Amino acid sequence: MDLIARLRAGLPGEAILTDPDVTGSYANDMASFCEAGTPAVVVLPRTVEQVQHIMRTASELRVPVVPQGARTGLSGAANASDGCLVLSLVKMDRIIEINPVDRIAVVEPGVVNAVLSRAVNEHGLYYPPDPSSWEQCSIGGNIGTASGGLCCVKYGVTAEYVLGLDVVLADGRLLTTGRRTAKGVAGYDLTRLFVGSEGSLGIVVRAVLALKPEPPAQLALAAEFPSTAAACEAVCEIMARGHAPSLLELMDRTSIRAVNDMAQMGLPDSTEALLLAAFDTPDPAADLAAVGALCTAAGATEVVPAETAAESDLLLQARRLTLTALERVKSATMIDDVCVPRSRLAELLDGTAAIAEKYDLTIGVCAHAGDGNTHPTVCFDAADPDESRRARESFDAIMALGLQLGGTITGEHGVGVLKKEWLARELGPVGLELQRGIKGVFDPLGILNPGKLF
Amino acid sequence: MDLIARLRAGLPGEAILTDPDVTGSYANDMASFCEAGTPAVVVLPRTVEQVQHIMRTASELRVPVVPQGARTGLSGAANASDGCLVLSLVKMDRIIEINPVDRIAVVEPGVVNAVLSRAVNEHGLYYPPDPSSWEQCSIGGNIGTASGGLCCVKYGVTAEYVLGLDVVLADGRLLTTGRRTAKGVAGYDLTRLFVGSEGSLGIVVRAVLALKPEPPAQLALAAEFPSTAAACEAVCEIMARGHAPSLLELMDRTSIRAVNDMAQMGLPDSTEALLLAAFDTPDPAADLAAVGALCTAAGATEVVPAETAAESDLLLQARRLTLTALERVKSATMIDDVCVPRSRLAELLDGTAAIAEKYDLTIGVCAHAGDGNTHPTVCFDAADPDESRRARESFDAIMALGLQLGGTITGEHGVGVLKKEWLARELGPVGLELQRGIKGVFDPLGILNPGKLF
Ligand SMILES: Cc1cc2nc3c(=O)[nH]c(=O)nc-3n(C[C@H](O)[C@H](O)[C@H](O)COP(=O)(O)OP(=O)(O)OC[C@H]3O[C@@H](n4cnc5c(N)ncnc54)[C@H](O)[C@@H]3O)c2cc1C
Ligand SMILES: Cc1cc2nc3c(=O)[nH]c(=O)nc-3n(C[C@H](O)[C@H](O)[C@H](O)COP(=O)(O)OP(=O)(O)OC[C@H]3O[C@@H](n4cnc5c(N)ncnc54)[C@H](O)[C@@H]3O)c2cc1C
Repeated sequence: MDLIARLRAGLPGEAILTDPDVTGSYANDMASFCEAGTPAVVVLPRTVEQVQHIMRTASELRVPVVPQGARTGLSGAANASDGCLVLSLVKMDRIIEINPVDRIAVVEPGVVNAVLSRAVNEHGLYYPPDPSSWEQCSIGGNIGTASGGLCCVKYGVTAEYVLGLDVVLADGRLLTTGRRTAKGVAGYDLTRLFVGSEGSLGIVVRAVLALKPEPPAQLALAAEFPSTAAACEAVCEIMARGHAPSLLELMDRTSIRAVNDMAQMGLPDSTEALLLAAFDTPDPAADLAAVGALCTAAGATEVVPAETAAESDLLLQARRLTLTALERVKSATMIDDVCVPRSRLAELLDGTAAIAEKYDLTIGVCAHAGDGNTHPTVCFDAADPDESRRARESFDAIMALGLQLGGTITGEHGVGVLKKEWLARELGPVGLELQRGIKGVFDPLGILNPGKLF
Repeated sequence: MDLIARLRAGLPGEAILTDPDVTGSYANDMASFCEAGTPAVVVLPRTVEQVQHIMRTASELRVPVVPQGARTGLSGAANASDGCLVLSLVKMDRIIEINPVDRIAVVEPGVVNAVLSRAVNEHGLYYPPDPSSWEQCSIGGNIGTASGGLCCVKYGVTAEYVLGLDVVLADGRLLTTGRRTAKGVAGYDLTRLFVGSEGSLGIVVRAVLALKPEPPAQLALAAEFPSTAAACEAVCEIMARGHAPSLLELMDRTSIRAVNDMAQMGLPDSTEALLLAAFDTPDPAADLAAVGALCTAAGATEVVPAETAAESDLLLQARRLTLTALERVKSATMIDDVCVPRSRLAELLDGTAAIAEKYDLTIGVCAHAGDGNTHPTVCFDAADPDESRRARESFDAIMALGLQLGGTITGEHGVGVLKKEWLARELGPVGLELQRGIKGVFDPLGILNPGKLF
């Protein structure tokens, strides 16, 4: 086949996978309900030059290219289309530089988030963005989705840590954006344009990331509430009073039970909502005491501050396991990612409960509550067509509610194929037209991750 | 005239200025050495609809439009071109909302930075970006230039505080970008694309800004050094040790003397460099003591911690006055804005001193040292053609040095007309082509601030 022969001219044999049994395993990410096609070939380059060769070849032959990191995405953004070339960046996984004076790291896209985090820790530094999938997901995928995590309520999302990029364009040319300096405003911010672009504008082959000094270990508390509304009231009070928690997470009753069932963690499963707050401040115990009092005032029935870092880790571990635990409730899940102004969080949670009732489904909610970013997780039996239909309808109803409350359909998981129609609704026709115009500037042939976003 | 008549159809008479004596006063911002033409008309709309009418009219008649805020810019980005329509946003200066729970403010573009800062302070909130011009400059101009300031070393620049925008496009259509939520990744980040776009992509008519809780009052210290290199060594040590100063500024001997001459502030003018550090942490005195020790170890001859907030303010006041003071040294100044990795700061300052000597000019340097962002300020006699030529050459030589040290030609002041050729050099041909492509998507007729950036 012409494509394969041409690829071989610039890539070693082991970097090119064509066995359908093998390539089939690269068909999709972790999202349910998203079509995935069969790739014609999977390539695993190790150098920038190889990526350039691949993109030049794909451009000449008009072959669609689907960039992939660790395929932990939750919107089908890394899903293959029929006959596409899957460009997996996982072999480009070197940490090129860690610089404590300039507080930056320079990395290849395949570096796993947790690997980078641990490496910079050894230099007394901290790379904040921490999606719950951090032990698997790649920095390239984090950049592709602009991913968030637990600590974003204090430290912000991936976008705020990407200073500069090397990107191989659709036609194989190499573009360098941004900088390795703390500041810089030379021209339009192309770096930010790539963050969250879901592989549709170019292939990230190198990133300059900003680092922070490592904060003190965080100390957490858990507070039990008789309703999600009461927990949300506590969230609003905590934020309005100017506290800066390093984590402020909510788990509803369904999530708590799912985690207990899976991991026997002994979470208080009689309660309606559990709020987890943590501080990595110089005096976390004092901050926890203040926040604990706000929780009590908002109606918490029990407030349990962790006494040690180990106890705190256990609480956070429970939160990190929530999605995995909810996946065991039924054969499949669909995970919403609606983000609303935090003042509207209670309404979103009440509305989600009503939607679960209306569609007669189990929907567990965990939320980056401090950011107003919720993950209502619809649990359903994929073998049951009626339940599957209701799952999809409830998933959509939650996005509609989010938009109605002044929110967005996606706080961190991205659009992919799962939320394409919803993106158009959120952006409106003018926004959509401009987004398409930008796509056309970077990828005039439309070969980069076609069918995603819009 | 057709243009004026058409404008009158959608604007009250007092919003349209045509008297050449008046319109002439809108010709330029605060940058030297930038051409400025004569506007055909100056309009001062008060509503979004009026801005839409203006842009529709300008589009139909193909009249170039120059958006203006307070015209404190330092790169000629707001300068008029001959026959242009100056669109001043200063009358759209309402603060629409301040929301402590969601930690956002919604404002019109003409709001003055300091006015907003004080208004949010009353709610216990903090809008960090604080250019030294904050008592004059507008939020719209801050967004146009992606401006920085003194506190950016801890709190980041304007870009990090802009969550969403309403923008009137070149053809008069209204675009809403971004969100009022803490997070959101729905589509390409158009909000960030507008930040720093220098009025070349659309007219910002409303902004949703992120706020922080108000930190404790900061406490500052001043440290005297026998060389700028020793001061830069202290900067690197402070940052490498994980300190988080709310301000870390450097003034060289020329700057110190200029401020003393203007304001009799009693700064130690026998020293080669003064480093100002401040902390707004829970225990600033302890942080200052640690940083003071690092300064001494790096060779500081004197370390003076302020005892009170008032003493600290006085030190910072001196820093804020530096540019104004340097403007009194000769009849004109050109202010560089080179930003380098902070590990290269000492080289940039030594190189700048060598450039001053080579061109036989006074160049005073103040710097947001913690960010590696320097403002070498070339003082010259504009009536002397030879000195003017040398001024321009030295200004350019400093940018060349910045690029050579891995830096950028502009950390916060933008490109405007002053640094157009240098932008092309920094971006390279591929980057420039893509930037032009983006410009074409938003402004196909090329009527928005033509001749700026590229
Ligand atoms: C259990 C679980 C928990 C999760 N928790 C979170 C969470 O807390 N927060 C959160 O934000 N997400 C979370 N996610 C979602 C997911 O982990 C993130 O979206 C992550 O950033 C994806 O990284 P990845 O390497 O797996 O990328 P992939 O899924 O492989 O790809 C994601 C997107 O990036 C593109 N891409 C990948 N690499 C490149 C590259 N080098 N150049 C250009 N484009 C590229 C792909 O085309 C695709 O569009 C979770 C997922 C799971 C399964
Ligand atoms: C003494 C002094 C000190 C300074 N210190 C600093 C500093 O510390 N940090 C720093 O970053 N800058 C500093 N500056 C530069 C300047 O103040 C900033 O660039 C500021 O952001 C400009 O705001 P402005 O309202 O004056 O905008 P203008 O100068 O009027 O315009 C700036 C740009 O924004 C565009 N623009 C303005 N409003 C809009 C709008 N509504 N929509 C679209 N485009 C618009 C204009 O077209 C132009 O391109 C200083 C300037 C002076 C004179």
